[in-house]
Amino acid sequence: MLKAAIIMGSDSDLPIVQKCADTLDKFGVPYEMHVMSAHRTPQLAAEFSSKARENGFGVIIAAAGKAAHLGGVLAAYTTLPVIGIPIKASELDGLDALLATVQMPSGVPVATVAINGAANAAILAVQMLSLSEPTLAAKLEEEKIKMREQVIEKDRKIAKGIEQ
Amino acid sequence: MLKAAIIMGSDSDLPIVQKCADTLDKFGVPYEMHVMSAHRTPQLAAEFSSKARENGFGVIIAAAGKAAHLGGVLAAYTTLPVIGIPIKASELDGLDALLATVQMPSGVPVATVAINGAANAAILAVQMLSLSEPTLAAKLEEEKIKMREQVIEKDRKIAKGIEQ
Amino acid sequence: MLKAAIIMGSDSDLPIVQKCADTLDKFGVPYEMHVMSAHRTPQLAAEFSSKARENGFGVIIAAAGKAAHLGGVLAAYTTLPVIGIPIKASELDGLDALLATVQMPSGVPVATVAINGAANAAILAVQMLSLSEPTLAAKLEEEKIKMREQVIEKDRKIAKGIEQ
Amino acid sequence: MLKAAIIMGSDSDLPIVQKCADTLDKFGVPYEMHVMSAHRTPQLAAEFSSKARENGFGVIIAAAGKAAHLGGVLAAYTTLPVIGIPIKASELDGLDALLATVQMPSGVPVATVAINGAANAAILAVQMLSLSEPTLAAKLEEEKIKMREQVIEKDRKIAKGIEQ
Amino acid sequence: MLKAAIIMGSDSDLPIVQKCADTLDKFGVPYEMHVMSAHRTPQLAAEFSSKARENGFGVIIAAAGKAAHLGGVLAAYTTLPVIGIPIKASELDGLDALLATVQMPSGVPVATVAINGAANAAILAVQMLSLSEPTLAAKLEEEKIKMREQVIEKDRKIAKGIEQ
Amino acid sequence: MLKAAIIMGSDSDLPIVQKCADTLDKFGVPYEMHVMSAHRTPQLAAEFSSKARENGFGVIIAAAGKAAHLGGVLAAYTTLPVIGIPIKASELDGLDALLATVQMPSGVPVATVAINGAANAAILAVQMLSLSEPTLAAKLEEEKIKMREQVIEKDRKIAKGIEQ
Amino acid sequence: MLKAAIIMGSDSDLPIVQKCADTLDKFGVPYEMHVMSAHRTPQLAAEFSSKARENGFGVIIAAAGKAAHLGGVLAAYTTLPVIGIPIKASELDGLDALLATVQMPSGVPVATVAINGAANAAILAVQMLSLSEPTLAAKLEEEKIKMREQVIEKDRKIAKGIEQ
Amino acid sequence: MLKAAIIMGSDSDLPIVQKCADTLDKFGVPYEMHVMSAHRTPQLAAEFSSKARENGFGVIIAAAGKAAHLGGVLAAYTTLPVIGIPIKASELDGLDALLATVQMPSGVPVATVAINGAANAAILAVQMLSLSEPTLAAKLEEEKIKMREQVIEKDRKIAKGIEQ
Repeated sequence: MLKAAIIMGSDSDLPIVQKCADTLDKFGVPYEMHVMSAHRTPQLAAEFSSKARENGFGVIIAAAGKAAHLGGVLAAYTTLPVIGIPIKASELDGLDALLATVQMPSGVPVATVAINGAANAAILAVQMLSLSEPTLAAKLEEEKIKMREQVIEKDRKIAKGIEQ
Repeated sequence: MLKAAIIMGSDSDLPIVQKCADTLDKFGVPYEMHVMSAHRTPQLAAEFSSKARENGFGVIIAAAGKAAHLGGVLAAYTTLPVIGIPIKASELDGLDALLATVQMPSGVPVATVAINGAANAAILAVQMLSLSEPTLAAKLEEEKIKMREQVIEKDRKIAKGIEQ
Repeated sequence: MLKAAIIMGSDSDLPIVQKCADTLDKFGVPYEMHVMSAHRTPQLAAEFSSKARENGFGVIIAAAGKAAHLGGVLAAYTTLPVIGIPIKASELDGLDALLATVQMPSGVPVATVAINGAANAAILAVQMLSLSEPTLAAKLEEEKIKMREQVIEKDRKIAKGIEQ
Repeated sequence: MLKAAIIMGSDSDLPIVQKCADTLDKFGVPYEMHVMSAHRTPQLAAEFSSKARENGFGVIIAAAGKAAHLGGVLAAYTTLPVIGIPIKASELDGLDALLATVQMPSGVPVATVAINGAANAAILAVQMLSLSEPTLAAKLEEEKIKMREQVIEKDRKIAKGIEQ
Repeated sequence: MLKAAIIMGSDSDLPIVQKCADTLDKFGVPYEMHVMSAHRTPQLAAEFSSKARENGFGVIIAAAGKAAHLGGVLAAYTTLPVIGIPIKASELDGLDALLATVQMPSGVPVATVAINGAANAAILAVQMLSLSEPTLAAKLEEEKIKMREQVIEKDRKIAKGIEQ
Repeated sequence: MLKAAIIMGSDSDLPIVQKCADTLDKFGVPYEMHVMSAHRTPQLAAEFSSKARENGFGVIIAAAGKAAHLGGVLAAYTTLPVIGIPIKASELDGLDALLATVQMPSGVPVATVAINGAANAAILAVQMLSLSEPTLAAKLEEEKIKMREQVIEKDRKIAKGIEQ
Repeated sequence: MLKAAIIMGSDSDLPIVQKCADTLDKFGVPYEMHVMSAHRTPQLAAEFSSKARENGFGVIIAAAGKAAHLGGVLAAYTTLPVIGIPIKASELDGLDALLATVQMPSGVPVATVAINGAANAAILAVQMLSLSEPTLAAKLEEEKIKMREQVIEKDRKIAKGIEQ
Repeated sequence: MLKAAIIMGSDSDLPIVQKCADTLDKFGVPYEMHVMSAHRTPQLAAEFSSKARENGFGVIIAAAGKAAHLGGVLAAYTTLPVIGIPIKASELDGLDALLATVQMPSGVPVATVAINGAANAAILAVQMLSLSEPTLAAKLEEEKIKMREQVIEKDRKIAKGIEQ
């Protein structure tokens, strides 16, 4: 199976990004997780991204905050789909990271998820990989059903609470 | 090859969305294009999305403005990757459509591109399909090279302009 | 009397939404409260909304955060008035939920109240129901008078504080 | 049948607000339309609103731009539901009017629709009145079906365009 | 000497507004402080403002949060200068109150100070009153000098800290 | 009578600022109008402001766009009330000028009016001067009545339009 | 003298960026102007920046719109000061480019000027170079004086206009 | 070596600004640190800036919050490069300070760094001084390498964590 790469711009992003790794684990998708910075280790990021396809990766997930260039920089060096997670920093509520990730110029898209949306980045990666992995498509379907059942269960509890 | 679906919330979005279709044409990716509204034809949208995988689609592209729910509504009914194009309407500069598309809750991602970023939505779709279609990977690589050469050519013209 | 439906997108919204239920209780308006998600249980939401009028509901109140599609999705399936409460999540201060709730396209309105404005959603629902329930109109009038008296009482205390 | 009141803060809002009147006409809902300002004719606005219920009104629609206080001021004097239309002025893209209309304090809601959403304000008013007017409920259902058919018709044209 | 009126929309604004009263005390400007709401006690607010000039007031200071209509409503009923203090509530960081206070339509200005800028509202009031009260002009000058000396003193401490 | 000073940061602001001068003319308030820049002629601005009170001015009106420092800089050198008009430039819709004008630190207020609110700046100035000029108070009252009558006249036309 | 580099992300930025070149010409600062894209020609940008200091450059000016990564990417590869000009594109009024340029992480600053502030980018570059080029310091002083005189001249015209 | 000046608008900014001083210490750049306010001690700020170049300064760093005029006011009186640090205050997340610092009019730039970006302001100052101080250029290069190695070390730890 193609691997996913999880790249975070700083190890301080790990508490958020961990949910991305956990979700990939749940789906049994192999991955590598790295700290690489668009600004502090640009050569490493460029090299990693340039060779990602030939190294067996199918998708790159990039998490970064503030002027979040990481997704765009990785996307510049690969034709793999790149998913961007805007990380909320202490100022501006994550709007800076969102805009810096999503507003990419024509030719070099970054598939952006919600601010701090690490679990969704993983699910999106699984959806992409599912196009050539029927087992992943089946697992996604199962998760969708579980998710529905959890909501129904919560609904029952709240409805019950009213009756009492 | 898996097909792409281009769904727009209103036919007034066509001038923007056309670039998406043109780009898919350039890459030779088959697609269907529809007008479906999350709010005016919700059942049709739900039905289309529910059966999209079995009907041979690999990715759904949703373009909508204002309180842009289309991407989210389609994503609710499928496990295919859904790409969202926030369309700029006459008020709020497209920020409403961006936030309504990208800020999806955990479990149901929408891969969001830039406001009015229709060409990038197509490229992102091609990148996803390229995971199982080596010819698309090759075409993406060619396009990346062309894009680079166009920039270099423009650089030459501007540099020349200064020298004269 | 027609019933109100209170639908929240997630049970984590309950602390805010509870004020809505409490206010309906105060006015003696019957209601059902449910957890239903536009993205996780879209069929249930669609079904509930489609049959809401025939099931004796007069108004639907929808509370959701982030890319808050719940109000719009419910409004798509009914001709009852739908009231939207944008819920503030941890990022973007609730602006995303506000825009995703209020900026509805022509033909499918959502009557939006303030971010986290759960009590006001209930009062708005009572105002709608009061058009055919004279007793509710009278209770609304009483509450308005109480509210005025509370402000006058607070004014007295503050004015007294200065004099001392 | 209960009447609707359409109040605009300035006659310069008429081009937008006219769609509200036209939509009420389409549904056969009687209405009065006035220019009244929260700041220039506050007494008239207060008086109108105070007596609106006894004068046969069932809902008040208020359209205003910039620091849009009109909806809130009318709501302060009545227990009827008040619908607010934030009008986009030349600065700030209507965000000021939206926030000034929707962020009402607890106890005095304004049912806010999209910026410049005049048609939706009318539909919301009809939905409210439909609770006690079955003929309006039927007309709303018809309009919903028409709206759906218009989208389907547009979809056919676009799909056809691709085939040719 | 003309009096100042300090009106707050809710007694929860008192911790912020207290600085306004304290500053007026420091300058020896007589004032009354009230809780009055544009939405909950609109008649009282209207009446107070209508008679403010004949009752010996020279300026009205209005503090309110969220859809802050209080300043505008008071300004509608008087030709006295009205100063608006936008109060930061728990959502949107006070931007809603700022826009709802400052973006007044032509003919009815509200002199807006910074979000939570209660002390500055008082100083602005004193500056207005100083036009006909030379003693206030002198006190303002003294305060300006004190303020300057405080900054110089702080500068000395920080500069000293570096030297050690 | 005390004079007003109208200071604009650039002569490109004149089309907006002219309304301020016209309104002062209507009330018969004497004024001087100058181009002075906080950044290009800081000494002149400082000198003008320092001597404004002794030179017979009662209020200073400052109009500036972008990082609009003019109001704050003038306020730093005087104890007269300073009114700020944020001017909308071609980017950011005037939000930058609004925040740079209104968010003044404690001790140095700028009385801010709406973006491009030049007429209101003049009316606010007249209101301040009216505290010691009873004739201005009377004129303000007259204008308020005229304004009301104009709205009533517009209301009549629109109401008539419906009847026909 | 050290050279300046003007790098624009797209040749469509030239109408704005030209003012930067013109200003450098006025000060007699030698420069090279290039089109290079952080996303389309990342290797060229990296290489240019890596060798900029040894190639005789003293400062790099980067102009880019939307998710403006160019300044940050160039700054990643050099220890020269990098000046960023956020370019206003058709959506979001340039706020995206501003945040993507200025909100750089610790260790890799980009000296950001106003949206579309191309002339100021040049002046800032000249100020930096003036630290080791006394003739530039003198020219900056001259320009400052000219600028002041232009404002004074404009002031005269406007003052004269009033008198007539 | 030319000195740097660190000017903060208020001593409450010291916790943020201290990182600026610490970073200059690390590079061995001499500096003075002062509290000066654009609004409370405008003459001192003007005088300091006017004489900064002749007093041996090569760059001025200005830190201020809210309507942050300090950078612009200092830039008005000098031809030295001025670096602005927008300080986040308790409201509006620092957006006000950012816009008030960066959106300077043509002719008077302020080199703006990220909100609270005190360390980056120091690095930018060192980069400017490095143009005439080869030892600083070497130190910047060393720091860049250290920074890279720190990221690589963090990458190793995270990668190791996954393997276990």
